Amino acid sequence: MADQDAQSPVGSEPAALPVLRWDEPPEGPVLVLLDQTRLPAEEAELACTDVPALVEAIQTLAVRGAPLLGIAGAYGVALAAARGYDVAEAAGLLEQARPTAVNLGYGVRRASGAYWAAVDKGAGPERAAAVALDEARALHREDAVASGHMARFGLALLNELLPGGGHRLLTHCNTGALVSGGEGTAFAVALGAHRAGRLRRLWVDETRPLLQGARLTAYEAARNGMPYSLLTDNAAGSLFAAGEVDAVLIGADRIAADGSVANKVGSYPLAVLAKYHHVPFIVVAPTTTVDLHTADGAAITVEQRPAREVTEVTPPRSRGDGRGAGGVPMAPVGTPAYNPAFDITPPELVTAIVTEEGVISPVTGVGLAELCARSSQVTIS
Amino acid sequence: MADQDAQSPVGSEPAALPVLRWDEPPEGPVLVLLDQTRLPAEEAELACTDVPALVEAIQTLAVRGAPLLGIAGAYGVALAAARGYDVAEAAGLLEQARPTAVNLGYGVRRASGAYWAAVDKGAGPERAAAVALDEARALHREDAVASGHMARFGLALLNELLPGGGHRLLTHCNTGALVSGGEGTAFAVALGAHRAGRLRRLWVDETRPLLQGARLTAYEAARNGMPYSLLTDNAAGSLFAAGEVDAVLIGADRIAADGSVANKVGSYPLAVLAKYHHVPFIVVAPTTTVDLHTADGAAITVEQRPAREVTEVTPPRSRGDGRGAGGVPMAPVGTPAYNPAFDITPPELVTAIVTEEGVISPVTGVGLAELCARSSQVTIS
Repeated sequence: MADQDAQSPVGSEPAALPVLRWDEPPEGPVLVLLDQTRLPAEEAELACTDVPALVEAIQTLAVRGAPLLGIAGAYGVALAAARGYDVAEAAGLLEQARPTAVNLGYGVRRASGAYWAAVDKGAGPERAAAVALDEARALHREDAVASGHMARFGLALLNELLPGGGHRLLTHCNTGALVSGGEGTAFAVALGAHRAGRLRRLWVDETRPLLQGARLTAYEAARNGMPYSLLTDNAAGSLFAAGEVDAVLIGADRIAADGSVANKVGSYPLAVLAKYHHVPFIVVAPTTTVDLHTADGAAITVEQRPAREVTEVTPPRSRGDGRGAGGVPMAPVGTPAYNPAFDITPPELVTAIVTEEGVISPVTGVGLAELCARSSQVTIS
Repeated sequence: MADQDAQSPVGSEPAALPVLRWDEPPEGPVLVLLDQTRLPAEEAELACTDVPALVEAIQTLAVRGAPLLGIAGAYGVALAAARGYDVAEAAGLLEQARPTAVNLGYGVRRASGAYWAAVDKGAGPERAAAVALDEARALHREDAVASGHMARFGLALLNELLPGGGHRLLTHCNTGALVSGGEGTAFAVALGAHRAGRLRRLWVDETRPLLQGARLTAYEAARNGMPYSLLTDNAAGSLFAAGEVDAVLIGADRIAADGSVANKVGSYPLAVLAKYHHVPFIVVAPTTTVDLHTADGAAITVEQRPAREVTEVTPPRSRGDGRGAGGVPMAPVGTPAYNPAFDITPPELVTAIVTEEGVISPVTGVGLAELCARSSQVTIS
């Protein structure tokens, strides 16, 4: 088993993560999610039998990540239709579950658009529900395919920018199979480099406050036998200063028409560090993340999250521990906190944006619009 | 009590923090420490009756912070002498407790130097022990005085750099009364601004991995009625981008002869952000922190700390909870981590160094050497 230890460039591939699946037991259809709040402590499933349960799963981050939220939203519409609930109401609830996640609304509108189009054509409820489910499955498949394209385009870009190989890549938050119908966005590029024998080290930012890097990216890296090291977000500066970072790879939650990138808080400081140290800063996201209706970074609304995410630390939940969303207090009671969920990186700090349609570099509004025009998906959002 | 809420520019001053005190109960002399691992959950004292107990307190960070470690080291020598233990052995143990803390060795050498000088002059053990204690008390007083000088010099510098007042200051780690015989270093400057009615907001970085900002600086800020907000270290970038930071104030663990500053990991990324946004980056530290024998940043050894500080989160300990130094696992078991305790900020990113002897700006090796020559203390280290 010596080829499966952390030093091995290519181990055998693990089974696909059961991130999200549609099931039809005798009691009726369910959407089964891998409960990401329990990772890495345990791989537990969460079965949603209706949309309110799915909305709660989205809000508690049991299911999360821009592309996966779109897929979950589409299946949510299909679930409401299959169970005979009010489809319009279900779509409204889902779209509002996390109003800033651009892909969520996209997925909901795709499945409900297909549903209503079928109804308009005279389909009965059962047939329309089947059409909505087909649309959700199509989106699911498309996202997996897009993930593969992004991985290939991203790896080609890395090989062009860093011809020496032996890449030391730094990533932030979680952008792997846990956010995608496939293997993810930025993480999928790093995984591609690993499989090609070109990954020397994946530096994993822990990503405070919710520690998606420590909990989820470390889990995916370990699962895939990649050479990785976890670090506090603070320690990235030391790696840049020591010349230990060849490129930064991150995902995106929304990309404005000018190429400004909203992503998990902590991305912008990495972009400034990368610029200062002349290191490529690469954003990997499907074209469904591009929002041509938002002109620039200043027009992106950044979600402010509760103070307790900062003043407390919430460990991964164990089955049956009975705890809610509360955590362990670290700061004095009543401490006020500033807790933006995202930050905005302006296009001049982004070396390239990698999508399933191709790569834009340098990042310009014109280039982004041209690339989006190639994607039939983006015209629907 | 309306003048004591967080919005009040100047509340009544709280009682001094009982950070460290010498006591002589009938059972014999003890060094009593405020156990900083229990803050902010509770203010519990820890009585050290011998040097091994003090060494353990230093290593578990029950007592910490560059200037305070110097004071603790000096009292530790006095404790060994007063209790009749081997003074040379005690000094050796203390100096090695945290080998990179420059002030610790300085304090130990001052008290043991005084002890052996007294012995050389024919003093008996009791008299020599009294001399060592006097030297520790002198260092304690000097540090309090130095803290006051730094606060005044720092405030004058802020008023010069930021003539408008209403300062929004960002700080990292903990540099207040908990690290000092007085009110600290960088924090003392912010407190001075608060008392002068010139502090609009103190932005407190939580300071992963050990959360000294969340646990200790938030505690001190709340105690002093300062307007403050806690943030993840990640979120500082958003504040800079929004123009919400007027200056960065940090302490130092070691300053090399060229002006390179070793400080808590996360300081260097703040320096790069400050440079990119044209915000002053100010280091506040006593001249005992300057190490003229270390030529530059590359010559500073950076302590690498255990992976579990990153892979686990350790809440403040409560009395009687029986837990050791272990924490709550966040990352998968066996996750490797990169965990440098400090980083190095080169002099070109430092706007000014504030010491008790005055301010150096711009930061140059010549300026630093001249300023240190004014301090009688630094010639002893």
